[in-house]
Amino acid sequence: MKKEINIGIVGAQFMGRAHSNAWYDVAQFYDLPFKPVMKAACDINPASEKDFSQKLGWLSFETSWETLVHSTDIDIIDICTPNNTHMPIAVAAVQSGKHVICEKPAAMNAGEAMQMMNAADQAGVKNMIGFNYRRLPAIGLAKKIISEGKLGKIYHFNAVYYQDWLVDPDFPWVWRHDVKIGGSGAHGDMNAHTVDLARFLVGEIDSVCGEGKVFIDKRKIPGTDRTGKVTADDSTSFLARFTNGASGNFIATRFATGRKNFLRLEIFGSKGSLIFNLERLNELEYYSRDDQSSEQGFRNILVTENEHPYINKWWPSGHVIGWEHTFIHEIGDFLLAIAGNLKITPDFSDGYKCQLALDAVMESSKSRKWIDIPS
Amino acid sequence: MKKEINIGIVGAQFMGRAHSNAWYDVAQFYDLPFKPVMKAACDINPASEKDFSQKLGWLSFETSWETLVHSTDIDIIDICTPNNTHMPIAVAAVQSGKHVICEKPAAMNAGEAMQMMNAADQAGVKNMIGFNYRRLPAIGLAKKIISEGKLGKIYHFNAVYYQDWLVDPDFPWVWRHDVKIGGSGAHGDMNAHTVDLARFLVGEIDSVCGEGKVFIDKRKIPGTDRTGKVTADDSTSFLARFTNGASGNFIATRFATGRKNFLRLEIFGSKGSLIFNLERLNELEYYSRDDQSSEQGFRNILVTENEHPYINKWWPSGHVIGWEHTFIHEIGDFLLAIAGNLKITPDFSDGYKCQLALDAVMESSKSRKWIDIPS
Amino acid sequence: MKKEINIGIVGAQFMGRAHSNAWYDVAQFYDLPFKPVMKAACDINPASEKDFSQKLGWLSFETSWETLVHSTDIDIIDICTPNNTHMPIAVAAVQSGKHVICEKPAAMNAGEAMQMMNAADQAGVKNMIGFNYRRLPAIGLAKKIISEGKLGKIYHFNAVYYQDWLVDPDFPWVWRHDVKIGGSGAHGDMNAHTVDLARFLVGEIDSVCGEGKVFIDKRKIPGTDRTGKVTADDSTSFLARFTNGASGNFIATRFATGRKNFLRLEIFGSKGSLIFNLERLNELEYYSRDDQSSEQGFRNILVTENEHPYINKWWPSGHVIGWEHTFIHEIGDFLLAIAGNLKITPDFSDGYKCQLALDAVMESSKSRKWIDIPS
Amino acid sequence: MKKEINIGIVGAQFMGRAHSNAWYDVAQFYDLPFKPVMKAACDINPASEKDFSQKLGWLSFETSWETLVHSTDIDIIDICTPNNTHMPIAVAAVQSGKHVICEKPAAMNAGEAMQMMNAADQAGVKNMIGFNYRRLPAIGLAKKIISEGKLGKIYHFNAVYYQDWLVDPDFPWVWRHDVKIGGSGAHGDMNAHTVDLARFLVGEIDSVCGEGKVFIDKRKIPGTDRTGKVTADDSTSFLARFTNGASGNFIATRFATGRKNFLRLEIFGSKGSLIFNLERLNELEYYSRDDQSSEQGFRNILVTENEHPYINKWWPSGHVIGWEHTFIHEIGDFLLAIAGNLKITPDFSDGYKCQLALDAVMESSKSRKWIDIPS
Repeated sequence: MKKEINIGIVGAQFMGRAHSNAWYDVAQFYDLPFKPVMKAACDINPASEKDFSQKLGWLSFETSWETLVHSTDIDIIDICTPNNTHMPIAVAAVQSGKHVICEKPAAMNAGEAMQMMNAADQAGVKNMIGFNYRRLPAIGLAKKIISEGKLGKIYHFNAVYYQDWLVDPDFPWVWRHDVKIGGSGAHGDMNAHTVDLARFLVGEIDSVCGEGKVFIDKRKIPGTDRTGKVTADDSTSFLARFTNGASGNFIATRFATGRKNFLRLEIFGSKGSLIFNLERLNELEYYSRDDQSSEQGFRNILVTENEHPYINKWWPSGHVIGWEHTFIHEIGDFLLAIAGNLKITPDFSDGYKCQLALDAVMESSKSRKWIDIPS
Repeated sequence: MKKEINIGIVGAQFMGRAHSNAWYDVAQFYDLPFKPVMKAACDINPASEKDFSQKLGWLSFETSWETLVHSTDIDIIDICTPNNTHMPIAVAAVQSGKHVICEKPAAMNAGEAMQMMNAADQAGVKNMIGFNYRRLPAIGLAKKIISEGKLGKIYHFNAVYYQDWLVDPDFPWVWRHDVKIGGSGAHGDMNAHTVDLARFLVGEIDSVCGEGKVFIDKRKIPGTDRTGKVTADDSTSFLARFTNGASGNFIATRFATGRKNFLRLEIFGSKGSLIFNLERLNELEYYSRDDQSSEQGFRNILVTENEHPYINKWWPSGHVIGWEHTFIHEIGDFLLAIAGNLKITPDFSDGYKCQLALDAVMESSKSRKWIDIPS
Repeated sequence: MKKEINIGIVGAQFMGRAHSNAWYDVAQFYDLPFKPVMKAACDINPASEKDFSQKLGWLSFETSWETLVHSTDIDIIDICTPNNTHMPIAVAAVQSGKHVICEKPAAMNAGEAMQMMNAADQAGVKNMIGFNYRRLPAIGLAKKIISEGKLGKIYHFNAVYYQDWLVDPDFPWVWRHDVKIGGSGAHGDMNAHTVDLARFLVGEIDSVCGEGKVFIDKRKIPGTDRTGKVTADDSTSFLARFTNGASGNFIATRFATGRKNFLRLEIFGSKGSLIFNLERLNELEYYSRDDQSSEQGFRNILVTENEHPYINKWWPSGHVIGWEHTFIHEIGDFLLAIAGNLKITPDFSDGYKCQLALDAVMESSKSRKWIDIPS
Repeated sequence: MKKEINIGIVGAQFMGRAHSNAWYDVAQFYDLPFKPVMKAACDINPASEKDFSQKLGWLSFETSWETLVHSTDIDIIDICTPNNTHMPIAVAAVQSGKHVICEKPAAMNAGEAMQMMNAADQAGVKNMIGFNYRRLPAIGLAKKIISEGKLGKIYHFNAVYYQDWLVDPDFPWVWRHDVKIGGSGAHGDMNAHTVDLARFLVGEIDSVCGEGKVFIDKRKIPGTDRTGKVTADDSTSFLARFTNGASGNFIATRFATGRKNFLRLEIFGSKGSLIFNLERLNELEYYSRDDQSSEQGFRNILVTENEHPYINKWWPSGHVIGWEHTFIHEIGDFLLAIAGNLKITPDFSDGYKCQLALDAVMESSKSRKWIDIPS
């Protein structure tokens, strides 16, 4: 009989549901030395209990995160709440000796993220930020190709993250529109992902210059006659310099009509290039200058072969996986890291470094000039 | 407390594993009036017990399907065994009062498939053939568009199913190479899917003319010095006439180097057209002659909107799903059909009709001429 | 001062215009030992004179092809007339000592095509059939890759040629709808191209089984109250066996709603594969099993590099060419063959062999069985 | 007999050759009230005479542009020389009463471009800057769609122009690497195109913030042992604000390994979106929020229909055109403007306004902050 490891989750919206599915399924696809138990879910809204306890498999439900993080029968806290609560929950959890997975972005700003990082270091617990796209097979393959030197020196890292759900002027005001709750809008939500991928694949960013935009500055507050002010950015673009000399270009927007979840990376190096698009997440395009000159072209690799990262857990060649599989990889690897006392990334220090870059972009947007990122 | 419904599965290879995942997850994504219980798994190979009982969630394991199908505490039998055993297991199961899901193709030939159909009719149980691609959101959307008359009169249904795992001459001899076990090779495995989709989307096939090919006729038997004779087709192509006048063209091959699981449909009608490709299963291309003439083009619809078939069970817009989700849809719908005593398709009669077409192609391949399909 | 070579063209419709452009431009892009002179154009319709003499650059115009082919000051006859006149014009021209380029298909049937071939052989003149797609850079590259053995043994040659201009029921009756003038419809026009490409890239076809279809059998005759009967096929599909064991599948249709000039080749071999699409004629997709296993994928080669076939006559890398450039390549190569007394293909014997295959398909469509092609 | 109009061209390299082809062909495809005569070509290198006089169709050749622009028998001067000579030649030509087409970018900087604009205004001659991509059918269609309001309010204009010919460190030093001759590198060559398209499709740019990069700062001077310093940018990216509130993002680079001539526009508006890629220049992708919600997707429009801009001059539907056809459209329209005394754009004032934006980006690259563009 395997030893059990007990999980508590905080936050019962979209991310809470996606993580729940992963906790539920992980043991089917990972060989784990212990049995993950979905011990307790927590949300300030008691209406979530129905879904989370009765359908998604959590054994209990409560409305106080403080109670949850101090429970003695919980080993792991998974934080899926709005950004302004990440830091207090994470700090309390690690101080209570829990291992913590926290959704991205790490926090409201680098200061908060640093507190999380320091608290986790001091507590000596495993900690992770939910930059789940690192664990897509195609991104894993990209990392491998780059690490093997096959792109040579990287010249360009161009990333866009396009969604369009705010184009509709009737889309209501929600918490994400309030910079005080979200910290930022498209920027913290979407550029957080691409900045993390940039750091993962290319390296640290040195300086940035960017601009945030609000295209529709008032939206109706549901169930009221009032409108709410939109203070969080609808879109943020920025230029970047990497410490290794590469040139970066980032665009995040929720006003890209027709694009639903289109995160495209274009990475150009002295020996080869890579293209990735999240809407076709099973594919990676790779160009190699080592191919015979008359036969060079972008190869569209279907990243579903047994030898590709993570795929041996799934189905045979050509049987594509979906978006939520990334959470199973994330949680599976986190559990293995706990079991083997292994280093796991992206951890809270990655969350902090990502936040430094995001903060610098916001500062640049105000000062209208380039900003150096503290190293 | 919900009433329980007990499942027994037969066959513990690739399909058994994919179905297990669906049984395990279905209640997370479907609102069901009862609780599915993964009661018993069965395989002639006792070595499968480890995976199926300990990891995939089955409560017990045995090696005799006869025992399983006669158990009084089983409500549903799920058949995932090689093709030559479908008929006996299915007939025994329905005669024992079980509802039955059976993997495709229905059986070794139309005669067997008819026995299954008749036995199920007589027993009055729910029955289904695992043509899971009917339950892809993109195929559901295609069905809707066609049903609404948006393609007009269908002129062409061109289907290819390309894989390449047999191109490697060192790929060993397996049971699928023996026509006596598999009934056929690429034909029964892959054309079964596209013929079913043709029937689902366009209608019945009237006559066919085709040819099966074996490209590599001997393969090494693993663990021996011997080679086995390949008697099942590596590839089968055929032309078809539909009863509604449409022209059909089908190609199934395991020698399409570079294609892993590439099932492409091209459906051309008097008012519009549809293109689908299983390697990009979240997308559907639609061309409409009703669009303004200077702006007509194939629209690439990302079939992940809330209003698209099945997607409201999953994630927000743009968050793509994978191949295995089809099994959850299939099993969820099957459970709802049992609960509500509803008609569910594709059932054994669909399996039989598909088999009639497949058999006619094989007869045509021998006689070198067109064969009419009995109606 | 370069020696002049005098050209006469017969036929002043679409093809006549495209060829005129090529005769006009060829000396800009080919180093030729003589100067091509656009001596005389000919069409039964005198109204064409305006365009052909005054705009397209022909020095004179007449309405009798007999006069033209017997002129003593003409060196080359270019035949762009309807199919039923190819044979008599070509035979008269070669017997009059002219070099001849004739549009495809060669003739109304293999018997006529054989007369052309024999007459040209006897006359010892240069002769060519206008299968211009052989001279696309991407097809030239495909030929090179196959000739070097990079695909290994070819298993599949699957070709479609999709257009949609007959889907409109109001499209009027034209000569192409009359089997007595055109010989066939989509088949002779479109399958002629793909059969020629099949012979060029893979080899001879051994036997075929196919079916022609008329989807709309009556159309209005312009300027009258009458309808004309459509006797030429709207679509023809066929299966083929190549002498080298490859399996062939061909579809030609003018009812592929949304496809304008979509000729797609999919060639699968034991070592690699190629994909080509005429609507993106500057690209060739190539998959190689020699690539490192985890990095295999279809490479999309932009066939615009200096080292690619024909491109060094044009623009720098990435500056794409169009459809009509093939005629310049065809005519340029034909002139060089005359100048150097070199063998040039595809010649009348290629026209004849293509016609044998086309005829066999039509016979098969009647007899409803496979037909062997005489070798 | 049509009146003749006499052309003189200056500059006999790549652009000179492409323009020559257009002058040679234009009367085949445009109905013109006069006959264009290729009177004289000019280049400082007498070795160009062979190609230009003997092959490309110019009646004479000389090495002094001053002589050419003052010839009394020349009506139009076409300037295809390096950027640092545009202004003096153009000013002299217009002052000599010639109509002038000048390759892009207009000049070395806005000051020079203003001189050209003022001189042309004063002379009252027709003048044009060779932003040929405005006359691609797909761009013409994009303009029409935007003008009809189908995109609504534009939120984003994101443009990249990717080439890779400088990635090779052995590519020699050429005049384009010297900022004193070229004015800039990738920026003036490539961003000039995308800034012009931005102005054409979206409107004026208000302010910019950008950065130029030199990735390889020394290259071998051919035929010597020396290396030359690269002072012109290998890549320049910038953010932009449009006066209408749209957000702009531009990247031009010659270090995009694998991309040959990849100019991509992504234009997102409140009602729809457009995507264009120069490597597939016959296509335009259009997304409309007016489509039925469950059927929205990017339509890939093959811009080869008779009703599409410019295409009625060419071939039937689906017969694609190439890059050089833009010059025929440009020159044909220019000739018609002269004939009808019509306004023609893009003219020297467009060249000037484009240059203002380009200059501001270069200033921003030095000052590391946003720069307002003088209006």
